[in-house]
Formats: sequence, structure tokens, C-alpha cells
Amino acid sequence: MKFRITPVNGGVCVVDGIFASGVKAGFKKDDFDVGFIRSEKEMDIVYLFTTNRFQAAPIKYVKRKNIKKTNFILANSKNANALTGEEGIKDIEELMEYLKEKVEVKNPLMSSTGVIGVRLDKEKIKKAIDKFNFSEKNSYAFSRAIMTTDSFPKEVAFEVEGEFGKFKIGGVAKGAGMINPAMATMLCFITTDADIKDDMREILKEINEITFNAISVDGDTSTNDSVFLMTTREGDYDKEAFREALYQVMLKLALDIVRDGEGATKSVAFVVSGAKNKEEAKKAAKALTNSLLVKTALFGEDPNWGRFASTVGASGVECYEDKLKIAIENVVLYDRGKILMTKEVEKKAHEIMKRDSFKIYIDLGIGEGSFTAYGCDLSYEYVKINAEYRT
Amino acid sequence: MKFRITPVNGGVCVVDGIFASGVKAGFKKDDFDVGFIRSEKEMDIVYLFTTNRFQAAPIKYVKRKNIKKTNFILANSKNANALTGEEGIKDIEELMEYLKEKVEVKNPLMSSTGVIGVRLDKEKIKKAIDKFNFSEKNSYAFSRAIMTTDSFPKEVAFEVEGEFGKFKIGGVAKGAGMINPAMATMLCFITTDADIKDDMREILKEINEITFNAISVDGDTSTNDSVFLMTTREGDYDKEAFREALYQVMLKLALDIVRDGEGATKSVAFVVSGAKNKEEAKKAAKALTNSLLVKTALFGEDPNWGRFASTVGASGVECYEDKLKIAIENVVLYDRGKILMTKEVEKKAHEIMKRDSFKIYIDLGIGEGSFTAYGCDLSYEYVKINAEYRT
Repeated sequence: MKFRITPVNGGVCVVDGIFASGVKAGFKKDDFDVGFIRSEKEMDIVYLFTTNRFQAAPIKYVKRKNIKKTNFILANSKNANALTGEEGIKDIEELMEYLKEKVEVKNPLMSSTGVIGVRLDKEKIKKAIDKFNFSEKNSYAFSRAIMTTDSFPKEVAFEVEGEFGKFKIGGVAKGAGMINPAMATMLCFITTDADIKDDMREILKEINEITFNAISVDGDTSTNDSVFLMTTREGDYDKEAFREALYQVMLKLALDIVRDGEGATKSVAFVVSGAKNKEEAKKAAKALTNSLLVKTALFGEDPNWGRFASTVGASGVECYEDKLKIAIENVVLYDRGKILMTKEVEKKAHEIMKRDSFKIYIDLGIGEGSFTAYGCDLSYEYVKINAEYRT
Repeated sequence: MKFRITPVNGGVCVVDGIFASGVKAGFKKDDFDVGFIRSEKEMDIVYLFTTNRFQAAPIKYVKRKNIKKTNFILANSKNANALTGEEGIKDIEELMEYLKEKVEVKNPLMSSTGVIGVRLDKEKIKKAIDKFNFSEKNSYAFSRAIMTTDSFPKEVAFEVEGEFGKFKIGGVAKGAGMINPAMATMLCFITTDADIKDDMREILKEINEITFNAISVDGDTSTNDSVFLMTTREGDYDKEAFREALYQVMLKLALDIVRDGEGATKSVAFVVSGAKNKEEAKKAAKALTNSLLVKTALFGEDPNWGRFASTVGASGVECYEDKLKIAIENVVLYDRGKILMTKEVEKKAHEIMKRDSFKIYIDLGIGEGSFTAYGCDLSYEYVKINAEYRT
């Protein structure tokens, strides 16, 4: 191994000169709801945003200003500042101006999550800004501040060392409901000091495809999802080491999001192989994570492989009954035309499905395309959370 | 009006010389589970089948035999005879042979619904055939025999009279879960005596687009869905009258299916207008019926218009914040950039959402494309039914 990746504490504050925290602005009953990430040094920043046509005001703001360097991100939960038109953008401008009076900022930006279609309460956010301790290194408080229906905060950090030298990388994310193919209400902030020589956005995009774009909680795509990657460029760099570390950061956060899917009791990896090509493998794998019938079968711990097959068949990918193979971990349920599910096999599969986490293998037996998508089950709790979200 | 459409009793038996019934074969605890439709006279038959790649054995059988005329349909519930390979087709052949010993049949066919991936219990079905009274006119018993998780049988019949003469038309359907765009586990049998002069399949396809293909319960598409249209050609015909009557038969059955969606407490029409074209209107309307966040908001009777907007935005259709308009019945919540949801407006909308059935209007304000899709809410009960389906 030419490099070593070691887990450490610190989240986004793992990088020297980066500060973060959260305060209580009163949007939540008794938890942090407004936070910041600040860097002493100006950072290069790249981002990926939602494919939803109604992008929220914070996204429009960043795009309009074409921000490529920054030293400050303000974040809030409980209000998405989406579908709020030009006024939503003006609200951000006013807050950014206010911020300038309190701390030295260069191209500050904002990131929001919460209810759609309600104007921001600027006064509350200004009061939150007044409370900020800008030299705090409290990534945990920041990760709590961006939580909505999440049940636990999501943080990760690594130190990476090798012949090339060393760099640090850390991340924070929020997820829960509305997670899907096209990265739904999900915010993710990644900081590093790696002196990235390659196209930062390209690397981020590539890793995003197999991490955040491979998970699904409920098939919805929000107005606000954003992934930010920032670097202070104070560390060293090696392409392979950086890609691997970024993959580990993003996969860890993505799996945390699935595990914390609204009301989810288990997370499942759908490993599709033998598809005509990668696109078809992805289409089938994502269809499985999004199917209500599959999700409820997972909740019921029922190895109803017919639903898996039917979902693949409905996804539109090329597939044949006599080439298809379906297994739950090492228990094969259907093998190219042969139904193998005896009472005994069913019992074995059922036992595996009681676990918190397991893999379902679907081989289409046609080509070389493969893709792994990560999903969760659908429980009563999901319905409860979402029926009562605003009340 | 050049013709009059009058509701009558009788379901598929409304047509002279058509018989139907159902018996208890023991697949269900204590209800009909195997049934038939028989005609004295050979009927012309056309059909539309699921787009699922894994079409069930009964569908493969009909396609392989290229059946265009028949006098007999055998139907069963609790077993879909899907993913059962060549053996599944041989099972049907054996049953059709058995049938020939009992009654005069010409090109008999079969239709199944239920669990996927389990071989048919032929002996039970043969015993059911032994019990059939082939001269019974009991459409109701047939409609019960094809029910799976349906909570009520679905039947309709009309007499149509005009200057052109007269004809009769009747239908039976089953639905509940797995209902979606591409006509999911849904069986529908329509009989008529109209002497249809135009392309029967074309008419069926056209009306299917705005009825069964406009409803969604859970976004899944099964291996078995089929719509059959049969005629004895003993009656008269007028194109306009026939299309209108067929539309009424199919819309009634489609709406019954939505109303009976697994665990559904209300049915909702999403009326999308002002889209770039009809395809885009359909895409947006169908996305709304399939979104879990919209469905749970309906269950929670929460006029959370931001979710409707976000879903339209995520559907990929052309749309703009300052052109979009959203209303629940006559209560406008968002009007081209203006958020109108005051406490009072919210209360009004909430009151409407308490109803069993209502309309949500989404105008994209761009073009002339419009489409109405019909959906239902997502309740705890849906999760319960589907987590425990096989147990």
C-alpha cells in the first residue's frame, strides 16, 4: 500500500485553520439549528447541486455569484428557503451583509434545509450570528445544526499519509427523508487541505455517482441538496490516495444517511451484476431501492424474491427469466429458471433479513455491467414522520 | 345527445349469451378464488399486457397461441403463475385440456394474479373446474374470485342506445397494490355485443391511456396486468357512443381501483395543465401520484404545497417558479411566485383535504399540455398489508 487512511476525530474541523459550530436560534425546540464553517485561509470550493428544476435560493445565490473561493458557509435547518423567488435571494444577501459586520468574510455563502415555500426568519438568524464563536472547532455542533428529521449527526474524518506526504479530509452530512438518485434533501460539506492538482469538480462528481447518487430513502429529490468540497491547499496530494479517501468519506456519510432513513429499521445493498452495461445495472439497482413493494418486503423480513424479480422486470432493463439469478447473501432463491425457495431456504433467507444490514445479489446473466445501490425498508414510522412533518 | 348511456346491473354478464361465475378452490380461506367467463358464441378478443419484462405464463400463453377469438377465460387469484418458466405454460396447457372434457371451448385462455414465483396447484384448479356451473350468470362471483388484497369487488355495466341502435357493455376489474403507469397487477375483463367496425385494439389502447394508465397506487408494475376486450358482435355500433361507453366503463373501474388502493383513505385527482406538451403534463401528474412525500402529505391532510412543487421540479419537466400555480380545489396556495398560504388559507385547504376525494390543480403556465392522473394517499395500513402479504 502506497498510502494509509486513518480514521480520526474532528469532522470538518480536522483540517488546520478550519472552524465550525452551531447555535440555537429557536427554529427547533431545543437543539442547534444555525451553524457555520469558517476558514482562516480562503478555500477553493466546488459543488454539486440538485437536479430539481426548482433549485432553492441558496443554490441560485451561489450559482449567480459564481463562487469559486470562499472562507465562510452559513447553514440553517427547518427552512429550505425554496420556492421563495427573488425575495429568497435578497434575504441571503442581507444576511451575508450582516455577517460582514461581525467577521472577516470573502464570498460567504449559505446552505439551507427544511420546509419549502416559507420565507426565512432573518431576525432569528441574525441573532444566531451574534451568538457565533468564530474560533470554535466544534464540527459536532455544526452537524447537529443542519439535522432535520435525522436521528443522529453524521460526521467523519481521516488522516492520509504515504510516500507523497500527507493530507487531512473531513465531512459532515444530513439526510433522512427525500433521499434519491439525484441526491435529495441532503447536505454534505467536505473539507480538506489536500493540494488537489486535478479537476476538483470532476473527482467530486465521479465519487458522488457511486456514493450519494447510489442511495435512496424514498425516491424523492429535493430542491436543496448540495455537496460542497473545499480545500485550504496547505497539505500534500496524491490522486489515488485522495480519490480513495474522498470515496471513504462520502460512502460513510451516504450509508449513515440510508441507515438513518426516515423510519428505516435496516439498510440493504442491492448488488446488480451481469447487466448489459453499467447504466442498465444502475437502473435496475435503483429501481429496487425505490420500489415500495420491495421496501415493505424488507420491513416484513420476507424473502419474497418474486417482488425483486418483478421490480427488475418493470425497470425496463434487458433481462430474461432463464438468465436471472437472485440471492440474499449466500442463500440462492432463484437460479436461471429454477425456483429454489423450499421451506428451508425461505427460513435461512428470513434469518438473514432479520439483520440490520445485508446484501441482495441480482445477476442478470447478460453482460458485464454492475452497480451497487443502497436502500432501506419502509416502516409505519416513515408514514408517521411524513404525514406529520409540518405539524 | 345522439346516444344515451344507462347504468345497469350484470357486470360482464350484461351481454346476452355471456356467463360467468366463481367458486371456492381453497386458495383463499373462505372466498371465491377461481372463476370463468364463457360465451355461447365465439368472441373477438383484443388485449393489452404489462410492460414488465417478466410477463407471466398466462400472458406468454396467449401471445404464443396468438389468440384472436375465444369463448372461454379461466381466472384465478392467489398465484400469479409468473417467473415459472416453460413449466408455468405447460401447467396452463394441461388445465385447458382438462377444461375441454367439461365444456365446449374454443381457444380458451387463462388469467392469473397473486404471488410471483410459485407453481400453480393444478389439482385444486381442476377441482374448481369440476364445480363450475357453466350456465350461471354471476359476474359478482367472478369479480370476487379475482380479488387479491382488494377490499371490494369492482363491476360496472351500461346499456347504450341511440339513433344507431343499441349495444351493451360490462366490465370487471381487480386492483389494489402494485398499480402504476404501465398498468400494474390489475386484471380487467370487458365484454360487449357492439359490432365494432374500427380497430378494437387501437380504441382499447387509446382509452387505456387516460384511464388505467392514469392511475397509481404504489408505482409498481406487475408481471400480470392485462386488459381484455371481447365482443359477441350481436349488437349495433357507433364509434362515438362506443368510445364514450368504454371510457366510462374503464374510468369507473380505474377509480374504484384507486379508491381501493392498499390502505388508501382518500383518492386524489392531480390535474396538470399549462405544460409544454401532453407528455410533460403526464410526466408531472404521474410523478405527483407516485411521490411518497406527496402521498404521506395527503394522508396527513397537510396542504404542504412545497412538496407538490418540489415533486414537479424533480420530475424533469420544464417549469418555472414564476409561472407555477398550485390550488387544492378552489383554494390557491401558490400563484406564480406569490406564496398565498396564510393561516386562513391553510385551514381552508386542510378542510378540503379531509374529504374522501378531491382535486389538486397544478398549472405550469408554459403551454397547452394537460393530463389528469389519479392517485391515493399512503397510510400505515399500506405498509402493514405489504409487509405481511405472504404471511
